[in-house]
Amino acid sequence: MALPQMHFKRGSPKPEIPEDGVLRYYTMRFCPYSQRVNLILNAKKIPHHTVYIDLSEKPEWYIDYSPLGKVPAIQLPQLPGQPALVESLVIAEYLDEQYPGAGPLFPKDPLQKALDRILIERLAPAVSAIYPVFFTKDPPADAIPNFEKALDVFEQEITKRGTPYFGGDKIGIVDYMIWPWFERFPALQYTLDSKYQLDKTRYKNLLQWRDLVAQDEAVKATTLDPRIHAKFMRTRHEAKPDYDIAFEPL
Amino acid sequence: MALPQMHFKRGSPKPEIPEDGVLRYYTMRFCPYSQRVNLILNAKKIPHHTVYIDLSEKPEWYIDYSPLGKVPAIQLPQLPGQPALVESLVIAEYLDEQYPGAGPLFPKDPLQKALDRILIERLAPAVSAIYPVFFTKDPPADAIPNFEKALDVFEQEITKRGTPYFGGDKIGIVDYMIWPWFERFPALQYTLDSKYQLDKTRYKNLLQWRDLVAQDEAVKATTLDPRIHAKFMRTRHEAKPDYDIAFEPL
Repeated sequence: MALPQMHFKRGSPKPEIPEDGVLRYYTMRFCPYSQRVNLILNAKKIPHHTVYIDLSEKPEWYIDYSPLGKVPAIQLPQLPGQPALVESLVIAEYLDEQYPGAGPLFPKDPLQKALDRILIERLAPAVSAIYPVFFTKDPPADAIPNFEKALDVFEQEITKRGTPYFGGDKIGIVDYMIWPWFERFPALQYTLDSKYQLDKTRYKNLLQWRDLVAQDEAVKATTLDPRIHAKFMRTRHEAKPDYDIAFEPL
Repeated sequence: MALPQMHFKRGSPKPEIPEDGVLRYYTMRFCPYSQRVNLILNAKKIPHHTVYIDLSEKPEWYIDYSPLGKVPAIQLPQLPGQPALVESLVIAEYLDEQYPGAGPLFPKDPLQKALDRILIERLAPAVSAIYPVFFTKDPPADAIPNFEKALDVFEQEITKRGTPYFGGDKIGIVDYMIWPWFERFPALQYTLDSKYQLDKTRYKNLLQWRDLVAQDEAVKATTLDPRIHAKFMRTRHEAKPDYDIAFEPL
């Protein structure tokens, strides 16, 4: 990986990515949606070049890869017209279908696949509730209660499934698609005066799941320490997001 | 179809749906996301019972079918546990995979499927921009310019594809998933003093596409006259949405 470990920003020259047909992955290092794609790339051992994008001051050339300037995006230089794809779930499904890796991550059964896609979407209310707690200084008082209520769905579901992973005995698409937020929740113990952590009784099985997933090789390859997430959150509190903080020592 | 043509609301007793194993479709008659599912049900000639839900005052029992109280939902009474599915695109893909009908609507090629899913999502900015024009009395001044800019993407894309449908020579998933909003845009000629219509030059190929899709049998089976959409929009302007207006004569 010859590409620099820094976020390209407005005015940055276009990086010289080797013309070797290798997939290109556009990301912001703290973006949970981008991490979803990174997890699939790692789980399936898909060779790729990584280009980091500064989301506050996007480089002018980025619109060529992601029409709305969003991350994640991937580009497929080995295909005619070098198509680019956006939307984390669309990219995840495309990669899962195109790269067999150690087996499919999406369920083969159409009903189970639909149910898993719905479950992934059900994290959205928890994410909406916790975002002001992550990224603002004065979140609404009901943010954490709303977050916890939304998260109950996942404790109930892992309990109902009765398997170590949402994917069953093996890690699967739900596990990878929801993981990035579970990596970030522990940062709150460093940013909040209350040293907030998920309740060990209320989320018993979910926390067991979290500890298990944390050991997955693809997860370990993409993970950041919660203290680094906390440092980034603090830069967001000051409205001065520092993306490159990801590459600094703790 | 023995079920009543009315929207069930708070206090409505649970409808007696025949226990005949037939798929159940939960909808609000003016909901564009629900119409997506209705289009697939019709295109694939999938037998179904329709249950209309009042979204302002939802019946207490509806949460059993749609965990967040959303429409559309489908229920599959022929399967163990009678599972229910939500999210229009998830349902559309499930139905497309399970019911061959006259052929698949989603592209078989994973890359084209990903590109089509991304294109469907790109209607979202146009929808966000036009919603206040549909449903409020005093939309922001930049609503229509923003809407038109977002819609340019579709004029460019149908022109680039060079085929009568987004799906090619046959109607496909993009056509059906974006149609509901194109059915509603002409209502603005009745609700706005300007008698707004899409510009015939700027959206030349897209309007040609619209006229063609309007002739599709599944579209005709689900469509409402723009004057009925306009009547419904006016009830929303008064904050008194009248869903059953769909079943009244013009």
